[in-house]
Amino acid sequence: MNYLTLDREALLQAHTELQRQFDHFCTMGLSLNMARGKPSPEQLDLSAAFLNPPPSVCSPGGVDGRNYSVLEDLPEMRRWFADLLGLSAESILLGGNSSLNLMYDSLCRLLLFGKLGSTPWCRLEKVKWLCPSPGYDRHFAVTEHLGFELITVPMTPEGPDMDLVERLVAGDAAIKGIWCVPLYANPQGACYSDETVERLAAMETAAEDFTILWDNAYGVHHVYEPVALLDILEACARAGHADRVFYYFSTSKISFPGAGVSMMAMSPANRREAVAHMTVQTIGPDKLNQLRLMAVLPTPADVEAHMKLQADRMLRPRFDIVLEALERELGGTGLAEWISPRGGYFVAVDTLEGCAARTVALAGQAGVVMTGAGATFPYKKDPRDSNIRVAPSYPTLEELRTAMSLFCVCVKLAGVEKLLEGCA
Amino acid sequence: MNYLTLDREALLQAHTELQRQFDHFCTMGLSLNMARGKPSPEQLDLSAAFLNPPPSVCSPGGVDGRNYSVLEDLPEMRRWFADLLGLSAESILLGGNSSLNLMYDSLCRLLLFGKLGSTPWCRLEKVKWLCPSPGYDRHFAVTEHLGFELITVPMTPEGPDMDLVERLVAGDAAIKGIWCVPLYANPQGACYSDETVERLAAMETAAEDFTILWDNAYGVHHVYEPVALLDILEACARAGHADRVFYYFSTSKISFPGAGVSMMAMSPANRREAVAHMTVQTIGPDKLNQLRLMAVLPTPADVEAHMKLQADRMLRPRFDIVLEALERELGGTGLAEWISPRGGYFVAVDTLEGCAARTVALAGQAGVVMTGAGATFPYKKDPRDSNIRVAPSYPTLEELRTAMSLFCVCVKLAGVEKLLEGCA
Repeated sequence: MNYLTLDREALLQAHTELQRQFDHFCTMGLSLNMARGKPSPEQLDLSAAFLNPPPSVCSPGGVDGRNYSVLEDLPEMRRWFADLLGLSAESILLGGNSSLNLMYDSLCRLLLFGKLGSTPWCRLEKVKWLCPSPGYDRHFAVTEHLGFELITVPMTPEGPDMDLVERLVAGDAAIKGIWCVPLYANPQGACYSDETVERLAAMETAAEDFTILWDNAYGVHHVYEPVALLDILEACARAGHADRVFYYFSTSKISFPGAGVSMMAMSPANRREAVAHMTVQTIGPDKLNQLRLMAVLPTPADVEAHMKLQADRMLRPRFDIVLEALERELGGTGLAEWISPRGGYFVAVDTLEGCAARTVALAGQAGVVMTGAGATFPYKKDPRDSNIRVAPSYPTLEELRTAMSLFCVCVKLAGVEKLLEGCA
Repeated sequence: MNYLTLDREALLQAHTELQRQFDHFCTMGLSLNMARGKPSPEQLDLSAAFLNPPPSVCSPGGVDGRNYSVLEDLPEMRRWFADLLGLSAESILLGGNSSLNLMYDSLCRLLLFGKLGSTPWCRLEKVKWLCPSPGYDRHFAVTEHLGFELITVPMTPEGPDMDLVERLVAGDAAIKGIWCVPLYANPQGACYSDETVERLAAMETAAEDFTILWDNAYGVHHVYEPVALLDILEACARAGHADRVFYYFSTSKISFPGAGVSMMAMSPANRREAVAHMTVQTIGPDKLNQLRLMAVLPTPADVEAHMKLQADRMLRPRFDIVLEALERELGGTGLAEWISPRGGYFVAVDTLEGCAARTVALAGQAGVVMTGAGATFPYKKDPRDSNIRVAPSYPTLEELRTAMSLFCVCVKLAGVEKLLEGCA
């Protein structure tokens, strides 16, 4: 039933029925959470082996993982990431348990020191930053917190609207960079096409030190058939902009969230500069955690098998539930649109304009916590009040079925309310 | 034999004999390292239990240590530090594996955001920083790297020269803070007296946002009888300067260097501000590492017993060797002075003026690496070229005996060379 074609009377009738369904959910005393991309406890149980002590406290190269060493240790861990992601081990620096922290620190360094001789950004009148949206709230929070002006760029199924990006960066030297989640982008699951990657690498930017923060958070987190991604570091180098991109990744959603190993990759010049700064900042990352990780998953094939297990047993069943519910309950209603992601942790639903906040509020009333409406946009303000992020990884299958049924009722109820306003 | 009283002929004779001893060491093919405060592998073996998986992946309060949670987790870990150090759990924030990183980040925040409403330091013409010296090279490196002007303040056996500190901070608003290692200070082992702590807390500073970085790195690292330390947070609060001090500590030299748990403690206002910044920077510290640590050492008494074991079996025998060698070989020679530390990881030796670099070079020639001469002063420049840091923790007892014999010969040889210059 396409609600957009209904007349006022039919809408009133539909409203009554939807209200009845909603009231029923309210009597169920639900307390469910689809707000955050947290793995379920059952999914973490699949990672139990990462708790084991490393088979040896020394690395194959003879570094004692227990003791102080140097910033760049362990070389084997850099090689591990390189093999997994198709990068060069020489491009990689290792971090602690949080790639977000590496991104934040990269930006702090740009503020305090500039990049390869450029003026430190803290000395500039204004720094602007491109935020493909909907996007990741914690990315936007970092750049907002650091005082940048956030510029919304619409997402397409192939990445940011590159016509707009190219026009903006060519014309404004205050635009210093862009957030990118190139694979299974939070929250829609969009994957950057080869053309998008090439254009990001090649485009002319008014700012000489324009920087792409390339957060490949879901680089091996396929839920269905894997989607391929072009190598941005290589593309930038080919285009003569080798120093444009910082690449981030972590094992948070391979081993344990909050206890994984993070990394960044960059050009030789950027890496030399980062090492010079980071050597002063810290004595180096936790090597025992690196040894634990590599002992359980020695090769990329082992990682692939582990990720397939997570997908087969945990994530794909949940994605299936979400996508089937959306199709069954909202398909053809005219009240919602979505992309079917092939991986990552999220599904994003676009309601009718002006209905996202109301939908999330309704779900909350019935006991299901969703990501706050607007969270996927800069300053937490969705100009169309339309985008809602669904995070299906944490609830059990049964909980998720219930939560999705409720969610779809809320989308419809909010949509019908909106349509009735238009009839009044 | 007091070399200072010898005439030229006697000095020449002494030189010949010392040169003979030195040449003998050179034939031994030594390859020893007393440069860095690294625990020995045998000392780390005493910490083997920290490698074990935590008995439960959940905290007593029910937080899943494997999953994402919040910046302030785990509360039990904050309580653990509070009980160990006599702090309030509410004053503590937890970090990753590096307290140095927490200090660096604190200074970056002061540069980018200021403190409780003060002007961000990156907007100021100049920031100056007090460096009690000899001190910790990595502290000095952080403030130098961030562009501060480093001001050397002499150390006394009771802490920094407080007459000078008070005069400097009262008269110059560009002086924004001071490094302090209050217990068994690197490298001399000086311990701050109650009076020093009280004066640091109470002194009037021209800069309203003057900040003490209080790195209590060796807070429970007693080698002989424990030395007590006044509570700086309480002293500052009593003096009406609650927001003056940031307090740091880590378990790097309790569990494993590079794989410990770090923390900082501060006033309620400072903590609120730090939480607001750090919540944007990271999702939170590695809780599994916290659980592993607390499982092995649940109470302060367990920590005390563990540190006593480290001291009894590892550190005190090494300190004894160093101090006995110094006394036996250099006592009464007039060529060297030192303080006998009661804890920590270092002994500092002051040679005759102008002899430190030569002494370290001689030791290096014979195959013993010492901390670089000058490293214990700002800009790596010891104005008297006199201070040498001895780090006895890493070598075996036998290696340390040999290295100290050589070291004392080098001190004497360099000293006699210098005295002969004076006779020329």
